[in-house]
Amino acid sequence: MKHEILESIKLAGDVKKLNKEQLEGLCAELRDEIIEKVSETGGHLASNLGAVELTVALHYVFDSPNEPIIWDVGHQCYSHKILTGRDITGIRTEGGLSGFPKSSESEHDLFVAGHASTSISAALGIAEAKKISGDGNSVVAMVGDGACSGGMIYEALNNAGRSGTNLVVVLNDNEMSISPNVGAMAKYLANIRSKEGYFRFKDKMEHFLLGIPAIGKGIFNILRHIKTFFKDYFYSSNTFEHFGFTYLGPVDGHDIQMLIRTLHRAQSIKRPVLVHINTVKGKGYGPAEKNPSKFHGVAPFDKETGELKKESGDSFSSAFGRTICRLAEKDDKICAITAAMADGTGLREFSERFRDRFFDVGIAEEHAMTFAAGLSAGGMKPVFAVYSTFLQRVYDQILHDASIEPKHVVIGIDRAGIVGGDGETHQGTFDIPILTTIPGTTIYCPSDYAELEKDLEAAFDSEGVQAVRYPRDCEKAVPEKFTAEYGDFDYFEGNSDCLIVAYGRLFIEAAFAANETGASVLKIGKVFPLEHKLIEIAKKYKNIFFFEESVEFGSIAEHFGNELSKSGFDGNYKIHCVSGFVPHMKVENAMKKHGLDRESMINAVKETLK
Amino acid sequence: MKHEILESIKLAGDVKKLNKEQLEGLCAELRDEIIEKVSETGGHLASNLGAVELTVALHYVFDSPNEPIIWDVGHQCYSHKILTGRDITGIRTEGGLSGFPKSSESEHDLFVAGHASTSISAALGIAEAKKISGDGNSVVAMVGDGACSGGMIYEALNNAGRSGTNLVVVLNDNEMSISPNVGAMAKYLANIRSKEGYFRFKDKMEHFLLGIPAIGKGIFNILRHIKTFFKDYFYSSNTFEHFGFTYLGPVDGHDIQMLIRTLHRAQSIKRPVLVHINTVKGKGYGPAEKNPSKFHGVAPFDKETGELKKESGDSFSSAFGRTICRLAEKDDKICAITAAMADGTGLREFSERFRDRFFDVGIAEEHAMTFAAGLSAGGMKPVFAVYSTFLQRVYDQILHDASIEPKHVVIGIDRAGIVGGDGETHQGTFDIPILTTIPGTTIYCPSDYAELEKDLEAAFDSEGVQAVRYPRDCEKAVPEKFTAEYGDFDYFEGNSDCLIVAYGRLFIEAAFAANETGASVLKIGKVFPLEHKLIEIAKKYKNIFFFEESVEFGSIAEHFGNELSKSGFDGNYKIHCVSGFVPHMKVENAMKKHGLDRESMINAVKETLK
Repeated sequence: MKHEILESIKLAGDVKKLNKEQLEGLCAELRDEIIEKVSETGGHLASNLGAVELTVALHYVFDSPNEPIIWDVGHQCYSHKILTGRDITGIRTEGGLSGFPKSSESEHDLFVAGHASTSISAALGIAEAKKISGDGNSVVAMVGDGACSGGMIYEALNNAGRSGTNLVVVLNDNEMSISPNVGAMAKYLANIRSKEGYFRFKDKMEHFLLGIPAIGKGIFNILRHIKTFFKDYFYSSNTFEHFGFTYLGPVDGHDIQMLIRTLHRAQSIKRPVLVHINTVKGKGYGPAEKNPSKFHGVAPFDKETGELKKESGDSFSSAFGRTICRLAEKDDKICAITAAMADGTGLREFSERFRDRFFDVGIAEEHAMTFAAGLSAGGMKPVFAVYSTFLQRVYDQILHDASIEPKHVVIGIDRAGIVGGDGETHQGTFDIPILTTIPGTTIYCPSDYAELEKDLEAAFDSEGVQAVRYPRDCEKAVPEKFTAEYGDFDYFEGNSDCLIVAYGRLFIEAAFAANETGASVLKIGKVFPLEHKLIEIAKKYKNIFFFEESVEFGSIAEHFGNELSKSGFDGNYKIHCVSGFVPHMKVENAMKKHGLDRESMINAVKETLK
Repeated sequence: MKHEILESIKLAGDVKKLNKEQLEGLCAELRDEIIEKVSETGGHLASNLGAVELTVALHYVFDSPNEPIIWDVGHQCYSHKILTGRDITGIRTEGGLSGFPKSSESEHDLFVAGHASTSISAALGIAEAKKISGDGNSVVAMVGDGACSGGMIYEALNNAGRSGTNLVVVLNDNEMSISPNVGAMAKYLANIRSKEGYFRFKDKMEHFLLGIPAIGKGIFNILRHIKTFFKDYFYSSNTFEHFGFTYLGPVDGHDIQMLIRTLHRAQSIKRPVLVHINTVKGKGYGPAEKNPSKFHGVAPFDKETGELKKESGDSFSSAFGRTICRLAEKDDKICAITAAMADGTGLREFSERFRDRFFDVGIAEEHAMTFAAGLSAGGMKPVFAVYSTFLQRVYDQILHDASIEPKHVVIGIDRAGIVGGDGETHQGTFDIPILTTIPGTTIYCPSDYAELEKDLEAAFDSEGVQAVRYPRDCEKAVPEKFTAEYGDFDYFEGNSDCLIVAYGRLFIEAAFAANETGASVLKIGKVFPLEHKLIEIAKKYKNIFFFEESVEFGSIAEHFGNELSKSGFDGNYKIHCVSGFVPHMKVENAMKKHGLDRESMINAVKETLK
């Protein structure tokens, strides 16, 4: 397909110059471009295809960046990137664009996204700042229906609704029903409301009444009350209206003219308005429409057939899922919880085999954690499977609800350590520092599947908060003489005064490095709390090297070093950790960059031995 | 007043034996007891007085602990403590009861409370555990309306509503309107619904229909749809019903017979039900009814007049509020945000003088932080004033929304360090460890008001996340020769090889200890990131003593010690930190217990010098 219209779009405003037919053509070209480029690099496909017309309409109506569009999560921003002059070739790979909004890429990405349910809070902040500065422009928050299971959305709606601020929330509803009321009745209301005359009249009347000094506001309020009474009496009102929003919708998210008309109306209302858009995930690409879940976040694929170029093999996630199923067969108190990540965390099989003991709570990590503590208080043995980056959201729920009065909760921390293509918003390098601050927490870090199994068994057999963390990867082979016995730690003595301390998948790299340099290796399996024996062993060495996929402050290396110092250690130690946020790049490249790969380990030891 | 009925209550179930008049008498005696005891020790008064009838009715209807009552926040649990056989004399003081639910006190406190909006999540977990175990008992979550501004409530409602689980949410509404719809129409509906016949009929019909194999469920669903359609068409439905709850109410929370009838109905429904209760905060005690805000959490007072025995004087909080006002006069970009703590954080004056730039978002810390980041993205200079213990709830919002793409947000962290009477759920000892993991964060810790002013000025003049943390206390005088110049650090040289490192209010104690022992003192003002110069100074000493109101893992002492070790320091250092959770006790006693008071410092130095 030729991209003639797309090539004419150089600036965000260029979309406004197109006529009706050209707009339709633009959408087709955008779809083609997205399918083409995502098939090469992988990325978020289905959600982006669903949001094509909506994004074109947004840029047609609103004047970004003066009227900024704030994306929630950011799984649907590829069209936005293209329409604001960016080339998505190589997106999510080193040197290419980020798969998420990123302010260093463009002034049209005013606010970061990656974690769910933050957009309305951020957009409201920007809108209030505009109000204070006397800037009458709208701010748009673009939210998917999935993000509406997150509590921050309600905290923000609750504040926005009463603020009267110029905020347009666009709800891109592609699957989940938010509330039973967003059904037949809501459509009926939308039918009345989206008639232009209704809004014009209402808007003019409000302006007229509010313009009358002293009395105007009073009359307006009385009329509003009467109207509300009748509306409530004769029609249903929906949850968004209870929060003080004007509700428009639902609108067919693939009818670009209807979208433009509705968004124009939303723009003119000048107070909090929610526009409800129905879209089809994967729209316009057969394989993705048929299987939107598979094409949500996808690896490179053949665009003609929709076949993945490389089928995903075994992984720590699937080993986790397998193990939990095996344990749940024998122990009917084991329950599993996920926050909308049944597939990603390997819990699909569990969800089918143990339906009564499986809980997908939606994107609601805070609730998930406290709910798990509740299950424990009720006598169950819950495991909450969660990506490391999202565990950041439940610090207080672990501390307050599971630690002060200890609850036996197992946390399966997936995507721990360096993660890869998602970049800064999806790091696995903060969970160790935050968990170690919480009294009574135990942390395991297996280096292969067999150890993961053993750690999960230990976690279910213990008490209190038990965290087992593992990377996105599949396991790798270790040199034979470094075969671990999966104790709380394994110690491999070399022939020099150098000791490498490592855990998880970095143990494999450490073993190879030790093989080449003669250094000893201390593999920690239970990384927290640290056993005193570890300090005793390490103290005997002159040079200790810590390698760890964590930020340094609060790392195991820091705790270990501190214990060493307190115990009178008089050698040297060096900490190799992750500094700052790792941008989107291959894991192996990031490892190199942060000095955590095999070569860096070898060099560090050799340098010292010189 | 004689407490004859109260004295007959030994076990939770004893309430069930009372007749109508005795129940009313019991309520009067409970009020008298609560006023009497709280006037002596201080505590939460107004909310407890409002919940007297409701608590009696709960224990009359439900069979605690088989039907457990899970309290949200816990500000209203004093009657519950008394009715379950506990004596509240000396509550919140060492040796007395905790002011919050505490499982080690009683089997009737199944789940911890202190932070808001957690109860429905916990109760749902317990209810699901009961369901899995085949236990048909109800679980009750008791929520105040204030907690309904917290997003976790919605996450939990969203999950509970669709679960069909046997859960009773009691909404104790004493002030705030949850939604416009909980008004005239809702009352009208309550009127219909609370007629016993309606429920009996509905319940029986459902059972009858669901009992017919194969077809029954189909007919039931059709009937339900027709009913919902008509109800939605003719009556308003409210937000709770949108979430799938059966809604009962509103009910007069001081009419004990009505409460009992409604709770009986709720208990019989056997699926998620929300009972909406209207109560009067401070009910039955004139001074508290007149000024419920003053009597929410109160110091000891004269129960005849309602006068506080000691007027609260100046504090770091009021110094903070004063300074923010002074700075906001000169800089119209300064905005202030609180999560329902305008008084506690000293922002009352700001809220009155700078209305357009003041935002009270309700108990919604997550939103508050991301909203602040949004204000910053819009060009404002926001300060979010929050207690240290509640900052735990926004770890991800700081990291994801304010740090990945740095936003200039000032955080005023009140109640930092050891706090006192509230106990384990209100600690100020975790903020340093979590903040130091977040790249780009700056932390100041002033030791007096003048330094607080200087730190806030510096924070507004800088970039990125700027945290200024201070205790609940008022400032204390320091020996003259230790008068600080408020640099990033101040160094006071003594005449021994001992160095005390401290910051914040512990600097004052360190100064006194140094005065007596001849030790040197290194006072850190900007505690993070640590300046290299600090390490250079400390390295000269043979013995270093860190004293810090923080847990040890992730403390400044640990980071400092680590830097010392890496720099080749060959002396000794000792870290004195807070271990675990500090229970309710006077701050000065807790300081002693954790070795952080003046005497402990003197002894530590003298011990070493020996």
